[in-house]
Amino acid sequence: MATELFDKIAVIGIGLIGGSIALAARRGGLARQIVAADHNAEYAATANRLKLVDHCGTDLAAACADADLVIVCTPVGACGAVAETIAPHLKKGCIVCDVGSVKQAVIEAMKPHIPPGVHYVPAHPLAGTERSGPEAGFAELFDGRWTILTPLPDGDAGAVDKVETFWKGLGSNVERLDSADHDRVLAITSHLPHLIAYTIVGTADDLGGDLDAEVLHFAASGFRDFTRVAASDPTMWRDIFLNNREAVLDVLARFQEDLFYLQRAIRRGEGDKLFDLFKRSRDLRRTLVHLNQA
Amino acid sequence: MATELFDKIAVIGIGLIGGSIALAARRGGLARQIVAADHNAEYAATANRLKLVDHCGTDLAAACADADLVIVCTPVGACGAVAETIAPHLKKGCIVCDVGSVKQAVIEAMKPHIPPGVHYVPAHPLAGTERSGPEAGFAELFDGRWTILTPLPDGDAGAVDKVETFWKGLGSNVERLDSADHDRVLAITSHLPHLIAYTIVGTADDLGGDLDAEVLHFAASGFRDFTRVAASDPTMWRDIFLNNREAVLDVLARFQEDLFYLQRAIRRGEGDKLFDLFKRSRDLRRTLVHLNQA
Repeated sequence: MATELFDKIAVIGIGLIGGSIALAARRGGLARQIVAADHNAEYAATANRLKLVDHCGTDLAAACADADLVIVCTPVGACGAVAETIAPHLKKGCIVCDVGSVKQAVIEAMKPHIPPGVHYVPAHPLAGTERSGPEAGFAELFDGRWTILTPLPDGDAGAVDKVETFWKGLGSNVERLDSADHDRVLAITSHLPHLIAYTIVGTADDLGGDLDAEVLHFAASGFRDFTRVAASDPTMWRDIFLNNREAVLDVLARFQEDLFYLQRAIRRGEGDKLFDLFKRSRDLRRTLVHLNQA
Repeated sequence: MATELFDKIAVIGIGLIGGSIALAARRGGLARQIVAADHNAEYAATANRLKLVDHCGTDLAAACADADLVIVCTPVGACGAVAETIAPHLKKGCIVCDVGSVKQAVIEAMKPHIPPGVHYVPAHPLAGTERSGPEAGFAELFDGRWTILTPLPDGDAGAVDKVETFWKGLGSNVERLDSADHDRVLAITSHLPHLIAYTIVGTADDLGGDLDAEVLHFAASGFRDFTRVAASDPTMWRDIFLNNREAVLDVLARFQEDLFYLQRAIRRGEGDKLFDLFKRSRDLRRTLVHLNQA
C-alpha cells in the first residue's frame, strides 16, 4: 500500500462524529497514527476501552503535538475556545478541520486563532444518528453521505484538496459551498426540522397531561419519526441554533407563513388547497428518492 | 383447526390498509372467504393479479352480499357515501367496521345508514407506511401495532368483542377509547406531524428556488424523516384534516405557541431555554423507546 495521506491525525472531541472519523480513517488507512483528546474523562476512557484511536487523553494541546491534521469535533459553541487552546501547539503546515453544522459562526470563532503557516479548512459532514457519545461511533457513518467543505476565500488550495481526499477516504461524497449558502441550506434541511421535532414532542407531552390519556402509548408513525429526530444531543443543538440564528429565524418565518396558510385552509374547509400542497410534497419526496438522498 | 372467526369478509377499498387486512386475515385463518371491491378498476385488477383476496370487483354492494364482516377501508371522506351504498345489501347480524384515522366524523357519517340488526364497530389501526395502493399491502403491517376501537355507547357488546378478536388475529394490540379522546390523541401524535411535514417540504422547495442551490441534494437526516412522512396519500390526508378540524386546530394552536416561545429564545440568545426543552424531548423519546413504540 502507498504512504498514508497523513502521518498523525488528532481528533479533538471523541463523540459520535469524532469516534466515527477515527474508525473510518483507520478503515481507509488514511494515517499512520490516530490520537484523540476530550475534556470529558469518561469519554476518553471509553474511547480507549473501545480502541477508537491509538490513544485518547484529556489534554487537547498535547494531542495536537506533531499532528498533520487536527479535526475539531466539539459542539459548535466550543470551537472557538478549542482553537485558542490548541493554536500554540500546532506545527507549521498542519491542517485544521472542523465538523460544525454551522459554518459562518464557526469560521468567525476559529479563524482568528489559527497561526500563520497552519491551514484551516472548514467542513461539515451531513451524517449523524440520534445517538451521541463515543459508543455511538461507527466506521460506516459517512459512507455515501455528503460532506460540505466551505473553504476560506484566502485558504490554501493544496490543503483544501487534501481535506477533500481525506473525506472521500472516509467514504463520503464531497461538495464545496460558500459558507453563507451552507448555513441557509442547512437551516431549512436540518436545523428547522430539528427545532420542529423538539417542539412537537414537548407539545404532545403537555397535551398528554391535559388529556390524562396515554398519548405516547399510541404514538403513530409520523410522531415516531419526529421523536427520533428529537432524540439528538441537546448541547449540540442549542449551539447550532444560537450560532445560525439569522438563517434559522428566516426559514422559521417562512415556515410559519406556510403553516398559517394551511391552518386557514383547514378552518375554512378548503380541501383543494390542502390536496395541492400534499400532492406537491409527495412529488418532491419522489424526487429525493430518485436522488438517492432519502 | 377450529372454525374460522367469520365465514365471509368483504373489504371495501383495496389500498394499503385494505390489502394488508386481507393478507393478514388469510394468514390468521380468520375467514373462509375474503372478497373485496373498489371503485377504482385498476386497483381491483391489481388486487386480483396479486391474489390479495379470493375476488375483487368494482361493485361495492355486490361484494357485501352474505358477508359477516364488512370493513370499509376508503378515505375518511368517502365513508358516509359507502355506508349508504352498501346498507341495503347487508345481511342481518353483519358487523361493519371502518379503519378511519378520524372517529367522530366517520361515526357521524356512517352510523345513520347502518340498518337495524347490523352492528357497527368503529376501528382505527395505527399502522401504515408512506406507500399507498394495493401493491403496498403486506400481511405483517399490523403486527405489534395498536388498533383503537371506539365502540358506540349503544353498540352490541358481542360484536365489539368479535371485532377485537379479529384485530388481534391480524397481529395487532387492541385498546378501546372514547371517540372524542381518540380524535384528540391522534391530532397530536399523527395529524399535526403530517401537516408539519407537508408544510416544511413545501417551504424547503420554495427556498430552494430562491437560493438557486440544490437544497434537496443535501437533505440531511432530519429532513429525510420529514419527507418520508410527507410522502403519504394526499387524498387520505386532505380528508383527515377536513374531518378532524377542531382537534387539529386546537393542537396546532398549542404547537404554534410553543414554536414561538423557541423562536423568541433563539432571537434573544436564551440558550438555557433551548437546552431545557431539547433535553426534555430527548428524555421523552427514551420513554417511547422503552414503551417499544418508537
